Amino acid sequence: MPARAAVMVAPEQGLQVWELRAPDLEPGSLLLETVASEVCGTDVHLWHGRLSGVPYPIIPGHVSVGRVLETRSVDRDALGQSLAPGDLVTFYDVHEVCHRCWFCLVARQPNRCPQRKVYGITYSAKDGLLGGWSERIYLKPGVKVVKIPPPLDAEDVIGGGCGLFTGFAAVERAGVRLGDTVVVQGAGPVGLSAAAFASLSGAEKVIVIGAPQARLELARALGADLSLLLDESSPRDRKAEVLDVTEGRGADVVIEAAGNPEAVAEGFELLRDGGIYVIAGHYTDVGSVTVNFHHAVNRKHADVRGQWGTEFHHLYKALRLLAKYKERLPFRRIIGARYPLERAQDALQDVERLRVTKAVIAPRS
Amino acid sequence: MPARAAVMVAPEQGLQVWELRAPDLEPGSLLLETVASEVCGTDVHLWHGRLSGVPYPIIPGHVSVGRVLETRSVDRDALGQSLAPGDLVTFYDVHEVCHRCWFCLVARQPNRCPQRKVYGITYSAKDGLLGGWSERIYLKPGVKVVKIPPPLDAEDVIGGGCGLFTGFAAVERAGVRLGDTVVVQGAGPVGLSAAAFASLSGAEKVIVIGAPQARLELARALGADLSLLLDESSPRDRKAEVLDVTEGRGADVVIEAAGNPEAVAEGFELLRDGGIYVIAGHYTDVGSVTVNFHHAVNRKHADVRGQWGTEFHHLYKALRLLAKYKERLPFRRIIGARYPLERAQDALQDVERLRVTKAVIAPRS
Amino acid sequence: MPARAAVMVAPEQGLQVWELRAPDLEPGSLLLETVASEVCGTDVHLWHGRLSGVPYPIIPGHVSVGRVLETRSVDRDALGQSLAPGDLVTFYDVHEVCHRCWFCLVARQPNRCPQRKVYGITYSAKDGLLGGWSERIYLKPGVKVVKIPPPLDAEDVIGGGCGLFTGFAAVERAGVRLGDTVVVQGAGPVGLSAAAFASLSGAEKVIVIGAPQARLELARALGADLSLLLDESSPRDRKAEVLDVTEGRGADVVIEAAGNPEAVAEGFELLRDGGIYVIAGHYTDVGSVTVNFHHAVNRKHADVRGQWGTEFHHLYKALRLLAKYKERLPFRRIIGARYPLERAQDALQDVERLRVTKAVIAPRS
Amino acid sequence: MPARAAVMVAPEQGLQVWELRAPDLEPGSLLLETVASEVCGTDVHLWHGRLSGVPYPIIPGHVSVGRVLETRSVDRDALGQSLAPGDLVTFYDVHEVCHRCWFCLVARQPNRCPQRKVYGITYSAKDGLLGGWSERIYLKPGVKVVKIPPPLDAEDVIGGGCGLFTGFAAVERAGVRLGDTVVVQGAGPVGLSAAAFASLSGAEKVIVIGAPQARLELARALGADLSLLLDESSPRDRKAEVLDVTEGRGADVVIEAAGNPEAVAEGFELLRDGGIYVIAGHYTDVGSVTVNFHHAVNRKHADVRGQWGTEFHHLYKALRLLAKYKERLPFRRIIGARYPLERAQDALQDVERLRVTKAVIAPRS
Repeated sequence: MPARAAVMVAPEQGLQVWELRAPDLEPGSLLLETVASEVCGTDVHLWHGRLSGVPYPIIPGHVSVGRVLETRSVDRDALGQSLAPGDLVTFYDVHEVCHRCWFCLVARQPNRCPQRKVYGITYSAKDGLLGGWSERIYLKPGVKVVKIPPPLDAEDVIGGGCGLFTGFAAVERAGVRLGDTVVVQGAGPVGLSAAAFASLSGAEKVIVIGAPQARLELARALGADLSLLLDESSPRDRKAEVLDVTEGRGADVVIEAAGNPEAVAEGFELLRDGGIYVIAGHYTDVGSVTVNFHHAVNRKHADVRGQWGTEFHHLYKALRLLAKYKERLPFRRIIGARYPLERAQDALQDVERLRVTKAVIAPRS
Repeated sequence: MPARAAVMVAPEQGLQVWELRAPDLEPGSLLLETVASEVCGTDVHLWHGRLSGVPYPIIPGHVSVGRVLETRSVDRDALGQSLAPGDLVTFYDVHEVCHRCWFCLVARQPNRCPQRKVYGITYSAKDGLLGGWSERIYLKPGVKVVKIPPPLDAEDVIGGGCGLFTGFAAVERAGVRLGDTVVVQGAGPVGLSAAAFASLSGAEKVIVIGAPQARLELARALGADLSLLLDESSPRDRKAEVLDVTEGRGADVVIEAAGNPEAVAEGFELLRDGGIYVIAGHYTDVGSVTVNFHHAVNRKHADVRGQWGTEFHHLYKALRLLAKYKERLPFRRIIGARYPLERAQDALQDVERLRVTKAVIAPRS
Repeated sequence: MPARAAVMVAPEQGLQVWELRAPDLEPGSLLLETVASEVCGTDVHLWHGRLSGVPYPIIPGHVSVGRVLETRSVDRDALGQSLAPGDLVTFYDVHEVCHRCWFCLVARQPNRCPQRKVYGITYSAKDGLLGGWSERIYLKPGVKVVKIPPPLDAEDVIGGGCGLFTGFAAVERAGVRLGDTVVVQGAGPVGLSAAAFASLSGAEKVIVIGAPQARLELARALGADLSLLLDESSPRDRKAEVLDVTEGRGADVVIEAAGNPEAVAEGFELLRDGGIYVIAGHYTDVGSVTVNFHHAVNRKHADVRGQWGTEFHHLYKALRLLAKYKERLPFRRIIGARYPLERAQDALQDVERLRVTKAVIAPRS
Repeated sequence: MPARAAVMVAPEQGLQVWELRAPDLEPGSLLLETVASEVCGTDVHLWHGRLSGVPYPIIPGHVSVGRVLETRSVDRDALGQSLAPGDLVTFYDVHEVCHRCWFCLVARQPNRCPQRKVYGITYSAKDGLLGGWSERIYLKPGVKVVKIPPPLDAEDVIGGGCGLFTGFAAVERAGVRLGDTVVVQGAGPVGLSAAAFASLSGAEKVIVIGAPQARLELARALGADLSLLLDESSPRDRKAEVLDVTEGRGADVVIEAAGNPEAVAEGFELLRDGGIYVIAGHYTDVGSVTVNFHHAVNRKHADVRGQWGTEFHHLYKALRLLAKYKERLPFRRIIGARYPLERAQDALQDVERLRVTKAVIAPRS
């Protein structure tokens, strides 16, 4: 049975709905019926052609939730839970690190493995149903599939999306400790998740800087103690506010999830001496910024840490905590709108124009 | 008996030799006869008035070696070794952290204590013999004095000078591990020391970038495996060289000890993905640099760490290792020239013009 | 005006109420009117003479809350907040680390400083009002006094007592991470606090093993997800339970707060391979235990960490979080009974016989 | 062409030399001609049947050096170096971690992966040439083969053997820092390697405790500063000696490589407060020991760390450093004797009776 999919045929060209042949299942593979797939900022970058080496035409959609339709010699999920047709699952979009290169073997840093493949980004539509904006998704042998733990449903998980575990990774990278004051720059999916997990880590104060107001309300619902609206404040105002709640010192931790070079200059101003600054929002080239390393880093005795991508355990732990704290972490509320495949182009535009925090492709809707 | 001292009366004015009254010893204090005191890059900055809050007139000279002349209710050094007149000692120039502020008590980061006082920098000549360019030095109660362990003599210690433990601190901050490739940017006293201690930490390769040639020879004598002469190579050449010896990846650790903003831009180019970059050479404001945080930090999953000043244990451990590895760590060879008090102005100029790697004031010479 | 104090004149002799002379305030000192002082397990050990070097007669009571009666040249608390007569305060019972020994200076580990003095333990009643079981407490110059932050009152703080920050220290030492499963052995004040702060750190599951039932109810009120009653289960049962909730692996972190050698043998059984085991409850010699280091440590690739005492920042951060999470952390409920000075002996007995979780001396009651 | 191999047919039965069929090479596999294979303490344990789940008959020999005879679709080693028949190689004996279990994926701790397979231990002779005491070794697809870097030859590498990277792993686990005093308990291959790498890490003092005298001489040749002969000293003497060279404090780091429970009790006595104790020598069950956790761990604020097995990067980094420091690290001198296949039984006995530090099977000799 063929599957319909929204295909990005080339940068800045209108998305098309294609009918694609159903795959033959290799041993170790699964076929999912897509329930929901997220539209993330990366998809906007993909549409503008800002990532290199993308094999257009592609089926976008890296984080998705689906129901198992068929399996071939697979009866366990990535962690050994029994798995059968009908189960609601998600999967780790990063596939096929090589376990053989210097980064995998010596540095133990698979997020820089050159063989890394990502669903919805590094596969061509010609290679098969390897993206989530499709009625069905083919999970190649070795893709890490995870049964969604109760009481979570598809909306909880896709509401978090890839931001859920990217934010988790940023908080883990920062090593947020009990009693810390944490500033999060940005209130998109990554920033909201970082705020939520910083709060869950026992931070004394979590401060989110972002826009628009609706996102800041989400931030507070997810655990932020204070939010500062970008449009209505200057960097000077925001610095005054952060110093005010930290007895003049600045934040113990700042997490950049803004994707804006000016945010980095501001972030250093908000950081206390000896603080930790995680750069998590610069996953594409958004330009440069001028920094005085005497003031920002050396004299401040600062720790600045890039967080590139994620690893499987970020997804796994974030999901487990989401299952435990479903009420306290209402990520499902981030979803702003649901789109059928035919309206994938509208979804991209709404995300780019910040009309919705999180757009979701629901192929069956 | 009065003591003669070289006094920096005000920025950019000729140094003067003053005769200063001998102090009355408070309980817990010592009086030293100065054997040697270093002329460091900071002294050049002091002369140009580049540090704020300096109470001119001052007696420069923060790291010194002296012989104990007199003690008052003191018979042990900072670590409990017996101490008596005639002993050869050095002392930790950073005095009087408060043990009471948020940085001392909560962050456990005394290098950012606002009460920190430094010999030769934050005391006025009117306060007494509190700098090393003087025939005698008064060690106030609580100054951490350390007997120089055998087989070291004054030249070994002053040859290392404050660079000895600043370089040690940079290597400790980097957490250099067995088998690392380490690039050190800068071949002044801090860079040379960083190269020496990186080598001593079991780095597989230590590469020093600097000038002039004589300093690179010192670098190799102290343990560098490779040195790259700044004047005869472009950043592109140097990057090619570092990639060449790291199978195309870049260095595990880069230590900036250059005091030059362009070095920072270059440093990111030399760092491997997932590497550690310590900024140790920007202890004064030498200007800004433009950085692309996508390439340099986020995508690279980099760790960037400022190292501000030192703590006592850096001095202590560096000295112990110097005593063990006197032959392998010929820091005494860094000393380029010795000056009597009357020629302190010449010493400053020779350091500024890079005529000598390390100049030493020897009041009795 | 003299002050009445409950004095432990010698081990295993009846406590006496003495009238002691009011002190003359040295510069930098304060006098408090005691509101409440805790009776902790250490006081029971003191009464039995189990600690060495105690200068009987002593006024017990190391953690206390008081109201400032009088100050001498002090107008700020340890963190710089304004301080005046009438303010409600607590203070850090560990006083006078030397800042000069190898442990203070080189290892940066003041909890092993040989000069450490502790209120209520290492001072004689002849030295003054240096323990909390007294109408008034004399805070010597340098004692770290902290204003109790709103909305906390005396009961919140003394309910936590020294267990509050000892438990905090154990959780910090364990480095509890988001999503961890944490087993706490013991449901006394330290165990309850460890459970509370492990939960606050974002642990996925906190399991408390202890007795009696009333303490386990407190544990759940403070954040434990599961509790196992010692009296009604065997070590085999408890291991089965822990394996059951960890998919057969064991806990990521185990914190020993039981003060019982058999607990250590059991703890290793409950720990997963690669897990972290903090030994925090063996602060007196309670005997030995037989361990197979192949199974328990080497093959398990375990991390075993002793936590000795606390540092000031543990108190400070624990108090700040208590102020933020007053509702979520109802430590005041731990208080089982309040005793006037005359009944201090009864308080000791009730603690020893586990009749109350926390007994409090309230000199004015 | 068949290959002769020394086969351990069952525990405590005489080894036999079998002729085994040459394998057909699967894609991704290699065939080596064995140059040398080590006889390690584990082989003695295997012969006594002390490890569970061993599929006798087996071909022992986990660490080996060979020359590439034949390859099938392989032209690179594990790190991407070109590889061809005739090259001298070693390989990582631990094969086939699953990359799929909780330990591989979530804990990132592949040394506890239940799927781990080890050459010479977990494969039956019926499965093929999967051990080193054989004329030829079959490297299954995925086995990590490494070209021996110049100027090393087979004797350098096999002299280090598996102890080379086990000792490296222990030093890495200890996090030995510049200036540390390190005690190594045991002077077998693991202890000698730990001493060598501790010295290479910039320890100020490395002290080896072991026997017989010949091994202590090797220890000093490899970098130990001091050695204490087990037979001629009591635990009390050794403690006195260690306290004497550490100003009464004990060692910063102790590494257990003795495989003896009493060594653990002694190790705690030799460790300073706040020190780090790595248990690396208890890789089989050698019995239990009684420990007082108040004195040994809690009051001492100790860190006790098990090191189970190794990871590939330990082998890789140890080899690179061995190549750099061939002169300083004369591991080849550890080899005591070489045995042809027919004398494998003698080799086992000589190792068990400590007649040689390292025995080597040389099938062609």
